[in-house]
Amino acid sequence: MSDAHAARRERLREYCSASGADAALITRAANVRYLTGCPPCGAALLLTRERALLAVPDDLPRDDSGEHLIDPELARLPVPQADTALAAAEAAVSLRVQDLAVEEHDLTVSRHRAIGGLAERIRLADLGTAVERLRVVKDEQEIADLRIAAEIADQALGELLESILVGRTERHLAMELERRMIDHGADRAAFPVSVGTGSHSGQEHHQPTDRRVEEGDFLTVVLGAQYRGYGISTARTFVIGAAPAPWQVELHRLVFRAQRAGREALSPGVEQHIPDDAARSVLQAAGHTERSVHPLGHGIGLEIREAPQLGPADMGKLDNRVPVTVGPGVHLPGRGGVRIEDTLVVRPLEEGGPELLTITTKELLAL
Amino acid sequence: MSDAHAARRERLREYCSASGADAALITRAANVRYLTGCPPCGAALLLTRERALLAVPDDLPRDDSGEHLIDPELARLPVPQADTALAAAEAAVSLRVQDLAVEEHDLTVSRHRAIGGLAERIRLADLGTAVERLRVVKDEQEIADLRIAAEIADQALGELLESILVGRTERHLAMELERRMIDHGADRAAFPVSVGTGSHSGQEHHQPTDRRVEEGDFLTVVLGAQYRGYGISTARTFVIGAAPAPWQVELHRLVFRAQRAGREALSPGVEQHIPDDAARSVLQAAGHTERSVHPLGHGIGLEIREAPQLGPADMGKLDNRVPVTVGPGVHLPGRGGVRIEDTLVVRPLEEGGPELLTITTKELLAL
Repeated sequence: MSDAHAARRERLREYCSASGADAALITRAANVRYLTGCPPCGAALLLTRERALLAVPDDLPRDDSGEHLIDPELARLPVPQADTALAAAEAAVSLRVQDLAVEEHDLTVSRHRAIGGLAERIRLADLGTAVERLRVVKDEQEIADLRIAAEIADQALGELLESILVGRTERHLAMELERRMIDHGADRAAFPVSVGTGSHSGQEHHQPTDRRVEEGDFLTVVLGAQYRGYGISTARTFVIGAAPAPWQVELHRLVFRAQRAGREALSPGVEQHIPDDAARSVLQAAGHTERSVHPLGHGIGLEIREAPQLGPADMGKLDNRVPVTVGPGVHLPGRGGVRIEDTLVVRPLEEGGPELLTITTKELLAL
Repeated sequence: MSDAHAARRERLREYCSASGADAALITRAANVRYLTGCPPCGAALLLTRERALLAVPDDLPRDDSGEHLIDPELARLPVPQADTALAAAEAAVSLRVQDLAVEEHDLTVSRHRAIGGLAERIRLADLGTAVERLRVVKDEQEIADLRIAAEIADQALGELLESILVGRTERHLAMELERRMIDHGADRAAFPVSVGTGSHSGQEHHQPTDRRVEEGDFLTVVLGAQYRGYGISTARTFVIGAAPAPWQVELHRLVFRAQRAGREALSPGVEQHIPDDAARSVLQAAGHTERSVHPLGHGIGLEIREAPQLGPADMGKLDNRVPVTVGPGVHLPGRGGVRIEDTLVVRPLEEGGPELLTITTKELLAL
């Protein structure tokens, strides 16, 4: 991967040159990883026209999975944990950098001031979200990693569906899913698994409780695996017991249709709000307006939420090879609800349209 | 707990008044939790002379364990996730705050600028680490929570020691310990459990690998539970198989003596570097100088590393009722090593001296 990382650094150098900066200081963990392969550890990257220098915490373990550490173009500077950004900036000073672009959306005010105080001749500019923008369109290696992350989550979910669920708590089921994802090769869960049953089902950010799964419950599972740093997210809602109630069948069908409308609207060149409009109009036609403030989905990759946002007010256009989530839901307070989410890659129709990564069935299984 | 939280907010108000600020904007998650009980969720707290307003993400689940949300003095303002700090600052503007103290060590440059641009008359000052300093000395409720967190970690570790270890991987053992801690009532692991065997043993930040435990290995486990937000940290090193090698016995005895010397030096009024000096001199007398850059320990509570630092250059004095870690280690590259860490509460001799929270035996068990 170090060639790909070097190519990404080159693109950032071009951006810096064009914007008049001699060098960039990258501190945001996902951006450092994107440009170097270094997993989140508090490292900071200094990128000048000729050099790339990674200030890493000096207590970082060296002898495990250190693939990222063998990039020939990347010099490593071990420094105490708290000082990586400052140490990289000091290196910039000693390399006679004058205009240093920093990530003002990541750097704290205190650290920014400390860096600005290092030398009189150094001028700090704002790099903004330049690296985040580079990250939006994924290369095929990144998509391959996302595909594996999705397979892992699908496997873990599939195994859980074959086990007895009644009587087990949300917390136990969530833990079990995390364990299974790691067993199947995930780095870790991409975010804490959410399991909601009964009145907790269908919520977007439900934290698992000690509530036990009961006959007749809706069961919503929101999970994602992370593989080589790349995460996906998926949600499914099932029903427990032999036969779902009519309101459950109806609500599930509605959210299924909304989610499908959102998925089908994904295409390169489409404005970002279009998939949200498509899904939202299905829910609104059925009288559900509660989700109006929540976007339908978002980009996903090295961060679990990244650009582009797929909300009602997002006006940019979708690009080819952008992985996004599409996950509408309806929650009826006190009763429960349905959430169905996939991770897909935007692809043109000639290539078969959006590529679905999370392939677990979206039917209303009765478990 | 809301009385305790209100009392803490009152102390911060006094600090703000003394420093000339009308109000404080608290954004650092552990500080928000300390002052409100609200678990980390991206909330921001505005504290004026008369009011306390918590801007919380509007997609926060409401119907689970919301103990923290029923503080009568605390108004809640639901806003979109990314905007909590800005929304709290906007509230400050509409309450006619003129001097607003912010946490410059937490706030990003971008957000600081956005807040400064809200109104012409608002002046931003630096609150610094005022809340972190309030957090150093714990009350008995906080110490009770830490005691439970330590019991949970001890239980999980004790159960693991009774199981068969040979042939299992570091990753599996780490996962098992996390699961057991949650089973015993932990919110979660306070940090990712580290299990290192063979040449990986004795390292401070070892990430578990697929290496399997073998006869004759050292096995180092570093773990901690979090209970009601409060975390502890403990490390033990054992040997696998019937009889440890002489070098293992010797190294373990050495680190044990160093750790004991560090523990015994803990006392109110003692300078922070003294426990480190005590432990370090034991290791240095035996020819081990490698740990010279790493401090012996640190404060622990709502954050797994917080003030005070216990390093060779730390000159402040320890207070009564301050929980700290004491955890020296020696790692011999290629061979392995020993790490032994406890969490203790500084207490005066009249009360029996330092209170040991993590009570798992520190003997060299042969498993």
